[in-house]
Amino acid sequence: MEKTKVTIGVDIGGTNTVFGFVDKNGKIIYSSSIPTHSDKDANQLFERLFNEINTSYKKFENEYKLVGIGIGAPNANYYKGTVEMPPNLNWGMVNVLELIKRYTPLPSAITNDANAAAIGEMIFGAAKGMKNFIVITLGTGLGSGIIVNGDLVYGNDGFAGEIGHTIVFPNGRECGCGRKGCLETYASATGIRRTVFELISSTNIQSKLREKSFEELTSKEIADAANAGDKLALAAFDYTAKILGMKLADSVAYLSPEAIILFGGLALAGDLIFEPTKKYLEENLLNIFKNKVKILPSALPGAEAAVLGSSALIWNELAKKNL
Amino acid sequence: MEKTKVTIGVDIGGTNTVFGFVDKNGKIIYSSSIPTHSDKDANQLFERLFNEINTSYKKFENEYKLVGIGIGAPNANYYKGTVEMPPNLNWGMVNVLELIKRYTPLPSAITNDANAAAIGEMIFGAAKGMKNFIVITLGTGLGSGIIVNGDLVYGNDGFAGEIGHTIVFPNGRECGCGRKGCLETYASATGIRRTVFELISSTNIQSKLREKSFEELTSKEIADAANAGDKLALAAFDYTAKILGMKLADSVAYLSPEAIILFGGLALAGDLIFEPTKKYLEENLLNIFKNKVKILPSALPGAEAAVLGSSALIWNELAKKNL
Repeated sequence: MEKTKVTIGVDIGGTNTVFGFVDKNGKIIYSSSIPTHSDKDANQLFERLFNEINTSYKKFENEYKLVGIGIGAPNANYYKGTVEMPPNLNWGMVNVLELIKRYTPLPSAITNDANAAAIGEMIFGAAKGMKNFIVITLGTGLGSGIIVNGDLVYGNDGFAGEIGHTIVFPNGRECGCGRKGCLETYASATGIRRTVFELISSTNIQSKLREKSFEELTSKEIADAANAGDKLALAAFDYTAKILGMKLADSVAYLSPEAIILFGGLALAGDLIFEPTKKYLEENLLNIFKNKVKILPSALPGAEAAVLGSSALIWNELAKKNL
Repeated sequence: MEKTKVTIGVDIGGTNTVFGFVDKNGKIIYSSSIPTHSDKDANQLFERLFNEINTSYKKFENEYKLVGIGIGAPNANYYKGTVEMPPNLNWGMVNVLELIKRYTPLPSAITNDANAAAIGEMIFGAAKGMKNFIVITLGTGLGSGIIVNGDLVYGNDGFAGEIGHTIVFPNGRECGCGRKGCLETYASATGIRRTVFELISSTNIQSKLREKSFEELTSKEIADAANAGDKLALAAFDYTAKILGMKLADSVAYLSPEAIILFGGLALAGDLIFEPTKKYLEENLLNIFKNKVKILPSALPGAEAAVLGSSALIWNELAKKNL
């Protein structure tokens, strides 16, 4: 009997590195994780990672054939195979695709987590069959993956898709990138926390959030407060959605996507963020685009989304090469 | 001897419709124009146009073989072959590709003028060999054509590439689209005229432009004044470039293009617009994109650019189909 083909999806995070064996239909055969040890270099991670992968693969190698490896990592460059000065890893500049040739001769590909999420949605998730869509990840920052004509937009240098660093207000909030007013300083899990503190300072709206320090406060707590009717938390969601909806109207003007998929921690707030974002998007759209663009939640299961995205990356490469 | 293949490029404007026979190298064998009669319907235009085309073709049909027709028109939809409610033509909704089947069995394609300009630059102009670039047309409005992975970005509905209608200031200048603060209300030939009048109202800078009415004033006259040292005209160029450079930094964050090509009336002002636009773009770019993106003038000869663009559109279609 012919073995079923599987790929490995790897997601490298600042704390843990998750990997999983995924078949062509997005079924996860096996997954696990190891600590990343972000203070150490990339070599030690991949040595431990491939030890784990080889050990786990032995359990089902009679049944499955490994055909490729897809990797999601911060600041990854698809064209060059590199990870470049990732903010949460002490790696400097590493050519990951070169490095892993020490451990495997299999085809491999790497991209950043937002791009992996976009390919994951296209192959396994909410964007199946779509050729033009955008994935927005609302986490600590705002990441984005853009699909045009069925392909990821990498641009000339591999770094396209930085919608989180488009400018909302020229002299707005300080951003981690060194500039001011970037979208991610407003629309992200961190952005909504900043908005809560702006509202605490500028209004007299009563709120239990006034009892929290900035470091304590999570976007989940803001959502819980909003669901319990806290007016300041509700105002924070409204403001976040207002900025996001306005800037997504720009995204539509650029790309006229079939859908925009919201992904990540802040998207888990559900209607609190989706409903006002849809409203403000429609208000800001050019007439020809009104009532056309879907705003959808991710259809990748939360805990496994990153592994599925990285696996989809390499499945997509293999499909392009008819392998 | 085998005949040389030619296509026809047609550019439909509010006043005149220009057409030309163009070979594969961008050489124009013959070109001419007829009045559009924008108050009348589309049928009458195409009947007169194909009369002209057939008459002219007789002169060199022994030498050249006609293989396709490309059309640039306002509000054209590439996917559907339609022109939809063009602001300067009394056409309503017309399926142009269906309509011209009455006159020719040749392969045909239609797109808007900014998209035609982008394909023209790729096939015959400043973007030869580039796979990722943006063309910005600075005319009465601001049009844009986006090329990603060597293909035009049409999006889900055919209307992608409306960078002129991304929002600069949420409650800014009234735009012809019915919204406020669109980029084209600042960065276009009309936008710089509005800026001159804003500066006349808000400053005491002396200027000979104070002698002109809004209807009289052209962007060419503002350029002439700036070249003669007129401080208000210089300030108007600086402000226009400041807004344009800032918003093009967003374009780079989306698409990471190899180049941005400025085209159209206002781009003819040369250094007056290119130098400050480059400066403000660089100031606003995310670090990873700094000193990477070229800002280039169009390399299509002005008077013939539109015909070359429309011709390039159909040459590109024929190449995709290996015809």
